[in-house]
Order: sequence, then C-alpha cells, then structure tokens
Amino acid sequence: MSAPDPYLRPAFPIADRLRRQLWGIVWTLLFRPSPRPLHAWRRMLLRLFGASIGSNCHIYPGARIWAPWNLTCGEVVAVADGAIIYNPSRIYLGSHSTISQEAYLCGATHNYEDLDFALTSAEIYIGEEAWICARATVQSGLRVGPGAVLALGSVATRDLEPWTVYAGVPARKIKQRTRRES
Amino acid sequence: MSAPDPYLRPAFPIADRLRRQLWGIVWTLLFRPSPRPLHAWRRMLLRLFGASIGSNCHIYPGARIWAPWNLTCGEVVAVADGAIIYNPSRIYLGSHSTISQEAYLCGATHNYEDLDFALTSAEIYIGEEAWICARATVQSGLRVGPGAVLALGSVATRDLEPWTVYAGVPARKIKQRTRRES
Amino acid sequence: MSAPDPYLRPAFPIADRLRRQLWGIVWTLLFRPSPRPLHAWRRMLLRLFGASIGSNCHIYPGARIWAPWNLTCGEVVAVADGAIIYNPSRIYLGSHSTISQEAYLCGATHNYEDLDFALTSAEIYIGEEAWICARATVQSGLRVGPGAVLALGSVATRDLEPWTVYAGVPARKIKQRTRRES
Repeated sequence: MSAPDPYLRPAFPIADRLRRQLWGIVWTLLFRPSPRPLHAWRRMLLRLFGASIGSNCHIYPGARIWAPWNLTCGEVVAVADGAIIYNPSRIYLGSHSTISQEAYLCGATHNYEDLDFALTSAEIYIGEEAWICARATVQSGLRVGPGAVLALGSVATRDLEPWTVYAGVPARKIKQRTRRES
Repeated sequence: MSAPDPYLRPAFPIADRLRRQLWGIVWTLLFRPSPRPLHAWRRMLLRLFGASIGSNCHIYPGARIWAPWNLTCGEVVAVADGAIIYNPSRIYLGSHSTISQEAYLCGATHNYEDLDFALTSAEIYIGEEAWICARATVQSGLRVGPGAVLALGSVATRDLEPWTVYAGVPARKIKQRTRRES
Repeated sequence: MSAPDPYLRPAFPIADRLRRQLWGIVWTLLFRPSPRPLHAWRRMLLRLFGASIGSNCHIYPGARIWAPWNLTCGEVVAVADGAIIYNPSRIYLGSHSTISQEAYLCGATHNYEDLDFALTSAEIYIGEEAWICARATVQSGLRVGPGAVLALGSVATRDLEPWTVYAGVPARKIKQRTRRES
C-alpha cells in the first residue's frame, strides 16, 4: 500500500470548511447585494461571524473576506469593492488604513521546498493610516508599517517601513510619505 | 466638539451616488447577462446613461463601466470582459483602441500627502489604435498616445508615447511599434 | 466600396461561439454554484465538454475555463477559485501542477505589428509539479518547465526553466527550487 498523496490532504479541518461554506452563503445572499451605504449592516454580518471591527469602518459590498473570524479592524478602515482579504491566519487592519479596489491581502502560501507542498499561512499586519492601493498585493506574514503606501498594482514581498511609499513587483522603496495641511 | 473625520466625508455627492446605484441595477439585470453578440443593445444602455459612443464599438457584457456619463468612445473600440473603466472623471477611448480582459483604467487616486487623504480624479485619454493589454493598469490623469501598447499585466504611471511598446511595473519603454501589411 | 474593417472580423467561427455560449450557461448554472467538495461533479461537466482530465484533479467552483475542449490535465492538478484558463489553443496542465487564485493563463494575444491586429493563440504547457502562484500571469505560447514556480503577481513572458523560481513583471529567475523531506 503506497502512502497517500500529500497534495490530496485537505488543507483545512472539516469544521473550518463548514463555517466558510456557511459564511459564503451569507456573503452571497446578504452581504454582496446590500446597498452601498449600509456599512452598519455589513459590519453586523461580519461581527456575527466573529470579526472584530471598530466604529465607522466601511467594508464595501464587493469586498471578499475569506474568514471574518480572523479579521481585526481598528476604526475608520475602508475595504473597497473587489478587495480580497484571504485570511486563514489573522489579518489586522489598523485604524484609518485603506484597502483599495482589487487589492489582495494574500495570507497563505505553499512551502514549495517541502515535498508535501504544504499550505502555510501567516498573519498580516497593516498599520494605521497605511494605504494598499488598487490591485496591489501583500504576501503572507508581512508587516506594513503605519502610513506606508503600496502603489497601484505593486506586490509587497517584504515588510514595509512606516511612512514610506513602495512601488513595483517586487515592491521597492521610492520615497518618504510626507504630509501637509491641505 | 472635534472636527469631523475627513476620512468619513462622502467622496461623491448624493445625486451622483443615486445615479450610480441605478446604473448598477441596470448593469446587473440588463447589461451583464446580455448575449455576447448584442453589442448594439449594450451601446444603447450606455448611451441611455449618457455615454458618447461611436459606431461599431464592442463593449462586452463583462466589462464594468463605473459612470457611463463620463465615457467617450470613438468608433470600433473594444472593451473586453472583465475590463474596468473607473471614471469619476471622463475617460476617452480613441477609435480602434482596444481595452483587453481585466485591463484597469483607474481614474482616481487619493492625495496621500494631504492630511484629509482626499479622493482626486483626473481624466484618462487612450489614443487611437492604442492597446491596453490584459491585466494592464493605467493610472489616473495619463495620456496614452495613439498606437501605444501597454503589455500584459503592466502598470502605466506616466504618459505613454505614440506607437511605442511599454512593459513592467512601473511600465518602461521597450521598443517602437512598427506595422507592416499582413 | 471600401474594404471591411479588419477589427470587425469575428475572431472565432460561429460554431465555436455557440459552443462557448452553451458552456457559459452550464458554467453559470451548474459549475459555479456547486459546493466546493464536489470536484468529481465539476470534472464530469468539464469532460462532457471535451476536457481531458486525470484522476483527483481539483478544479474549484470559481475557476473559469474558457474552452474545456482545449484543456488537458494530468492527475492531481489544482485550479483555484478565480483562476482563468483562457485557451483558444490547447493548455496542458501537468500532474501535480497548481494554478492558484486569480492566476491567469492567457492563451491568446494580438499581433500588433500587423495592420489587421489579428488575434493569435498559441498553446501553453505547464510542467508537472509547477506552481503558478496567485495573481501570476503566463503569456500565450510559453512552456513552464516541471517544478518551476512563478511568484505572486508575476508575469511570465518567456519559457520558464525546470525547478527554478521566477518573480517580477516581466519575470526574472531568482533562484533554484530545491526540495527536502518535510
């Protein structure tokens, strides 16, 4: 009898898969079609499924959260339509952080140097006032410093320093982010 | 009494939000499910909502246009399934320009150097016979010259010169585009 | 009488377009909403439409296959939610290859140096145990060697050598992929 193929082992336990199936149904029927201004309704749904969400967060109806029970948001966080929060491990979104359209917080990877190609997940931390721009991607296990900016379509493969602007695939530091009164 | 949080100011006036809500319903019910060959039907819907569209444009059913009233197309323009026209400011698509699958014309950004992180939009101009390839992205405020090509998955952060091929994130000039009889 | 505009010639013959329309309806009604564990059901649907699929392949419900009749999979292949298999020409997925979320195998392009801007497609070959990471893109006509890795959000514009890790837009070789017992 040969050993079972490691590629065929379920990546997640059955209870977790059932919970996600249930959340998927709720997302499709109650979250996704909700009118855009009903942020309080969507916060309520996410909290029902275990998310920790501060006041005044705007999670738009087209935002996809993989596991609300692994999401921790501060206050006044925005997660835009088409953004993907893939969080087999916890993802933290600091207060006043912004996750723009189609941004992708990719909280898991495969260990491609292991023979069994195991799925491994790691926490992602997005600092206060950081901005993950549209179509940008953050790899699992990273810390994005407070106020950091990851530019349009860029991919972060290392931690981002606070108040610094990064761009490219992989993302490189391009300048400091300074702020002035407007 | 403290000042209101600038992050919580609505980015768009109420009339604009209602109009987009209405367009969203029409898109979902009448545009998105329409059979692929019914280009004339989709042009009619877009024109009903204020778009200026020349003859023989092929706007595919999976194309997402944020605000038809801010879209100006020449003739024989193609906008593929999954392409996103995000146009809080006007976007111009020149005749014979092609916007491929999942291309993203991203017509707004945030001013991240201002304390209030204001949303700012700016027009995008795509020249005649230009080609925005699949998964490529154009930043707000740019002019893509006639005949320019933005390669697969690339991100334009500056104006593109006419009849020139660009690739990368951010996109760099890689060669001239020449044409011959086929 | 002027010559017809080459941009307006249908890219595909009518029989092909009808077959895809039919497959689109089946995908929407029977494939997309199927529960995640029902891999056998989705394999059956794909085979009904002409796909060649080995045992134990996991094609997830959100995976989009353009033309099942142009898909050849080995055994134990995974194609994740949101992955796009755009295959006007045949695409081969070797055994134990993994196509992650929102990866894009883009099997066609336009010949932008021809006056008629013709759509041209070419086969894509993904080797055994290769991994196309999330949001990565493979251009038409390429061979991805066995065991090669195309990193998160990268774009392959040339063939990838076996057991080598590539990253960037365009993708560059960054290291060998070695494996050890886990």
